[in-house]
Amino acid sequence: MRTGWSELALELDRGSIVPIYRQMYERLRELILAGALPEGTRLPPERSLAERLSVNRSTVVHAYRDLAADGLIEQRVGSGSRVAALGGGGRPDRTSGVPWWVTLPPWRVGQFPAVLGELAASEHGGLIAFVQGVPPAEPSPLADLSRSFARVGGDVNYVLTYGDSEGYAPLREAIAVRMRGRGCPVDPRDVLMLTGSTQGITLVAQSLAEPGDEIVVEAPTYPGALQIFQIAGLRAISVPVDEDGMRVDHVEAILRTRRPRFIYTMPSIHNPTGATMNDDRRTRLVTLARRYGVPIVEDDPYGELADSPVPPLLARDAEYVLYLSSFSKTIAPSLRLGWLVAPRTIYERLLLRKQSYDMASSMYIQAGVRDYLETGYDAHIDALREELLQRRAIAREAIERWWPPTMRVANGDGYYLWGTAPRELRARVLLASAERAGASFLFGEAFFAQSGGDHNFRVALTPVARGAIAEGIRRIGEAAR
Amino acid sequence: MRTGWSELALELDRGSIVPIYRQMYERLRELILAGALPEGTRLPPERSLAERLSVNRSTVVHAYRDLAADGLIEQRVGSGSRVAALGGGGRPDRTSGVPWWVTLPPWRVGQFPAVLGELAASEHGGLIAFVQGVPPAEPSPLADLSRSFARVGGDVNYVLTYGDSEGYAPLREAIAVRMRGRGCPVDPRDVLMLTGSTQGITLVAQSLAEPGDEIVVEAPTYPGALQIFQIAGLRAISVPVDEDGMRVDHVEAILRTRRPRFIYTMPSIHNPTGATMNDDRRTRLVTLARRYGVPIVEDDPYGELADSPVPPLLARDAEYVLYLSSFSKTIAPSLRLGWLVAPRTIYERLLLRKQSYDMASSMYIQAGVRDYLETGYDAHIDALREELLQRRAIAREAIERWWPPTMRVANGDGYYLWGTAPRELRARVLLASAERAGASFLFGEAFFAQSGGDHNFRVALTPVARGAIAEGIRRIGEAAR
Repeated sequence: MRTGWSELALELDRGSIVPIYRQMYERLRELILAGALPEGTRLPPERSLAERLSVNRSTVVHAYRDLAADGLIEQRVGSGSRVAALGGGGRPDRTSGVPWWVTLPPWRVGQFPAVLGELAASEHGGLIAFVQGVPPAEPSPLADLSRSFARVGGDVNYVLTYGDSEGYAPLREAIAVRMRGRGCPVDPRDVLMLTGSTQGITLVAQSLAEPGDEIVVEAPTYPGALQIFQIAGLRAISVPVDEDGMRVDHVEAILRTRRPRFIYTMPSIHNPTGATMNDDRRTRLVTLARRYGVPIVEDDPYGELADSPVPPLLARDAEYVLYLSSFSKTIAPSLRLGWLVAPRTIYERLLLRKQSYDMASSMYIQAGVRDYLETGYDAHIDALREELLQRRAIAREAIERWWPPTMRVANGDGYYLWGTAPRELRARVLLASAERAGASFLFGEAFFAQSGGDHNFRVALTPVARGAIAEGIRRIGEAAR
Repeated sequence: MRTGWSELALELDRGSIVPIYRQMYERLRELILAGALPEGTRLPPERSLAERLSVNRSTVVHAYRDLAADGLIEQRVGSGSRVAALGGGGRPDRTSGVPWWVTLPPWRVGQFPAVLGELAASEHGGLIAFVQGVPPAEPSPLADLSRSFARVGGDVNYVLTYGDSEGYAPLREAIAVRMRGRGCPVDPRDVLMLTGSTQGITLVAQSLAEPGDEIVVEAPTYPGALQIFQIAGLRAISVPVDEDGMRVDHVEAILRTRRPRFIYTMPSIHNPTGATMNDDRRTRLVTLARRYGVPIVEDDPYGELADSPVPPLLARDAEYVLYLSSFSKTIAPSLRLGWLVAPRTIYERLLLRKQSYDMASSMYIQAGVRDYLETGYDAHIDALREELLQRRAIAREAIERWWPPTMRVANGDGYYLWGTAPRELRARVLLASAERAGASFLFGEAFFAQSGGDHNFRVALTPVARGAIAEGIRRIGEAAR
């Protein structure tokens, strides 16, 4: 059986960070699931397709292998690859004799499957890499933190134990006290310790929604969250962000006609724009949440670093706001420690699922951080806030000096600058030439659930030495010219 | 609308550790989903149901609240509770104005929802509590471990970083070397570091299967795994364990007619029985896996502690065996550090989902453990193995002396003793009187996916002082008489 296969287009973007084999896989998958390549259609032999598309044969082999792993095609030695018979949901019946990895459930990966890994990965070669959202090396928490860990590391009760799944009680208490200081009515029993706030995003994605459900996200937003929502099978509806934060009028328009499971927002020092939502929008957002019965997931890893701190959304509504934060940006990412504040109506449900992820977050880490909160944290946060201001000032001065006037960054606060390249310059092209000039950053598309961001890019000011910022900015300017 | 509600039975087990409100919830849920209580059926007022069943009113309030949270009933002030209109899958349409937590997706919890928390929780009052699977306080790894952490804690690259999601490369290398020493052909690239092996169980449950899929488990087996499979919506088919391990003949019978997604087994020092699968069964199991195209998930947190170590199943088949292990039982649970060895066919899929759980496992912990593997681990493991042998000998001697001859424990190795109470004595009843006598343990039902274990119980020998073992065993014997 032959269809008009040879006429079908397989457009590949050779400038993308998405590997070519993965792009081929995605295009073919769409064609198969859309019925454009019906059951039994013979795919071109690997070698001839590779030649036609000018790619390595191994690229095609890879793509076919992944299609087979998703059960979308069948590969038989001698007779090549054919589109498989799809049962409901695109999964073929499993039959004896087929290797188990061929018939696995569908694998949901986003447009940029590597993005979480990219954000986690270690630094690249000799570039001035404005990529990762790690804290600056100075001011350093290390000396005080080491002392805290030395104090707890000799105690059996902090080391040879799992601890409670809710978290270490004195740490939950300390966090509740601090959150009350920020205007939020938090009881220690409302606090659930997390192994980083990434865990919290997956926790709410899996507990509050089911695959196929819709949610509301900002555009742009944190790419790690987009990847998590994709893996959880959720469909993101995007709402733009401007310098006053999320466009709440768009949220209202969506809630009038759709039933999203939750609204994911970073209202304070938004990643990547640095924007903080204004008071008016905050009031409207929580009003809408209550009126339409849709909870807000407030992701707040940066809020404590604000030059002029604003109370979290949680301060306005503790029933409709689930609050997430982390010590990754304020102390150190290697702690893998964050927390969630949830209303009683949902707490137990979240707790049981959190247990299924890792029983409990490390008691040793929790006890060490609790000690550090009392001994080094406040001074460190003050110094870090000051450091961020200085880094932003250095970067802005360099931008004024070195960038073409048509290339600008958004006003904002915190770790990142959100740039917009001139109309004729795509950010991926800018990145390629910046890398040649010796600087790198993240291009904008990864921050959007749907299209968008072609001309945007994020410059992280913290992973490089302070003294290298101006030179890195200069190199990006050189690349733009 | 009235149905024959008042005649419907609501059987409650007052001896169960499942809270009464949860039992009520479960029974009512079954009746609603089975159609025995159709849409619109008015539930009895809380007060009158409480009186009829002789429970507190708050118990009924709790149960109704959870039913409402699952969208199974509607509660209106003034008109009481009615069975809701159910759409497909038992979820009612979400309508504006209903609080968001009422219309959440169905909440899957097991028969013993608190069991993971119980396993993680800190010790109970003044009892000799043979409950948790924590390492003994002696031999202590703490001094060497503290030194290892002191060595890495001052380094920015170990603290102010996320590290790679796959794990810290030198640690993966060290693990691969050790696994090769145990007969497994492991390349460092096959190793995925985990935040405890609990994370690995959830990882395979969510990556290899979909809600509604079947899997094969042992009976008895680790209750934490059962809870995870329940939350993931998987249906467990049980296979008995005897003193030579899993009954592989039963596995074969199942594979002839069913298509489970994977076989979950602890072939070395099985939890709770302490059994190690014999050579013959190991050979048959991997043969079956390959013949029927069903992967094996080998959970091996205790294997290195065996008095006469046996190579893992992974040594026999690296394509059909996914291997999980942990440092929780060999060093310390508070490290929350484990690892997975997976074939290339599935590695990337697991990696992306692991990223969605917590980006990467703590780099600080990983670097510290890597240092400890070189400086303290081998001596510690040897001492720990010896300590376990001594504890088992002490316990067996006390059992001979103090227990009725009709109450026995299985032969085995490792942390636990698996007891069988006499025919006329249920283990829960034994537990209640043991607690009065000043000792506790885990009763057997939690270790079974289906029925079973009424007369079994698990005695963990490690969480108590060595000197308290004999006295604790004596108290259990006293309770049995």
